[in-house]
Amino acid sequence: MAFKNLKIGIIGSGNVAHHFATAFSKLPAINLKGIYSRNEETGSTLAKQTKVKNYNNLNEFTQEVNLIIICASDDSISKITSKLQLNNNQIIAHTSGVVSIDVLKSATENYGSFYPLQTFTKQRQVNLNEVPFLIDASNEKTKTILLELACVLSNNVAEVKDEERRKLHVAAVIVNNFSNHLFALAKDYTDKLNIDFNLLKPLIQETALKILDQNPKDIQTGPAKRNDEKTIKEHLNLIDDKNLKELYKWFTKSIENYYKED
Amino acid sequence: MAFKNLKIGIIGSGNVAHHFATAFSKLPAINLKGIYSRNEETGSTLAKQTKVKNYNNLNEFTQEVNLIIICASDDSISKITSKLQLNNNQIIAHTSGVVSIDVLKSATENYGSFYPLQTFTKQRQVNLNEVPFLIDASNEKTKTILLELACVLSNNVAEVKDEERRKLHVAAVIVNNFSNHLFALAKDYTDKLNIDFNLLKPLIQETALKILDQNPKDIQTGPAKRNDEKTIKEHLNLIDDKNLKELYKWFTKSIENYYKED
Repeated sequence: MAFKNLKIGIIGSGNVAHHFATAFSKLPAINLKGIYSRNEETGSTLAKQTKVKNYNNLNEFTQEVNLIIICASDDSISKITSKLQLNNNQIIAHTSGVVSIDVLKSATENYGSFYPLQTFTKQRQVNLNEVPFLIDASNEKTKTILLELACVLSNNVAEVKDEERRKLHVAAVIVNNFSNHLFALAKDYTDKLNIDFNLLKPLIQETALKILDQNPKDIQTGPAKRNDEKTIKEHLNLIDDKNLKELYKWFTKSIENYYKED
Repeated sequence: MAFKNLKIGIIGSGNVAHHFATAFSKLPAINLKGIYSRNEETGSTLAKQTKVKNYNNLNEFTQEVNLIIICASDDSISKITSKLQLNNNQIIAHTSGVVSIDVLKSATENYGSFYPLQTFTKQRQVNLNEVPFLIDASNEKTKTILLELACVLSNNVAEVKDEERRKLHVAAVIVNNFSNHLFALAKDYTDKLNIDFNLLKPLIQETALKILDQNPKDIQTGPAKRNDEKTIKEHLNLIDDKNLKELYKWFTKSIENYYKED
């Protein structure tokens, strides 16, 4: 079983499926056979866009592909897998950060993870070349094939064990989901005051860029870091929203404790 | 009083003073006369680096400059100001986000804010050209001069009233200090598990880039956003640290409530 001869099938038509199918269809080294999606409308649109076959029948799909990549929500991975019976020459992988690869066991002995550690939105192009792909698999031949496929897409491929990927996913939620929520709350705050949120965008960019070559622990600044109780008090007076006040207090306490222990 | 004839003096030798003095000394349109710093060592080093006069005597300093920019910590601005007596042709401004410009009133009738909304570290170059400068002043002639000076440094100059700048500073603390603390906590978590924090860096960059052209409210993803209680429970099981568990719960609750109200 060599990677070049594999006919790849994607299950799903959401953000990750969209980005993968688009990238696969542009790479001559990759043979994307088709797409199966429970949502027939978005599935058929994606198949048309990437000029591959759209499957409405799961049995037909599994008979015509060798490597299945499930790009579906965490919840539906086990549901979909329970409907699949693959042979020993077929491979299945999912793209979830948090779901164990063991949920794929019932479909075949060749299963693994093919997890792109990045945030995807349909409207926004992401350079897959820089996206870390975290690979693990049930056996060596499966792992080799998934690693080979990932290396065609990205320069940042890592073998990361199932359990570790799931732990890393927690950290991904913290740096991505929670940061973005901070931005949303800050925007609400400035919007309410009729202050232009755009003024904060260079600061947000620089905050992210700084940690590329510096340890976030070492570059912490702000009133909580320097125990500036006067500013903290003034800031709390300038916040009306109860939730935001709570957030401000929580971070202030956490930062103060964090640097006290040093 | 025209901007081009002004001899500028900087008070301070910290991060902001360092970036300003370096930028001023490179711009032919700006006449940086010298630096006064309570810390004589860092003050003299900065003066040497930027090839301007180092003042150890505050009286001598105030007699030889027309425009004083205080780049000192929030706490020390009023202390320094109380020692200054300027004439009606001199101007003073501070670079603080949170301190009201009124604390400068005792020194002269020409005072204002010259606030760069960015995070500065000595080791890291920042392109001042993209930094928003927020300007306000006690009178029109002072405002004009501060606006002119800011426009020489940056393409992103805004007139923002004292009270609004102080409110915007709260939002700056949220998006910068609190985000950075999230990164520090996430790094501690991955370090303890011996997982490479570098794997998260592309995600952190993309999270910041996404909000340049999208509303953070509209692009929120993750288990809390989709009410995925199973993943939330699994994540909480994967977190040992009490503080981090609390943080995870707080954000999960806040995100769930935020999108419930919609």
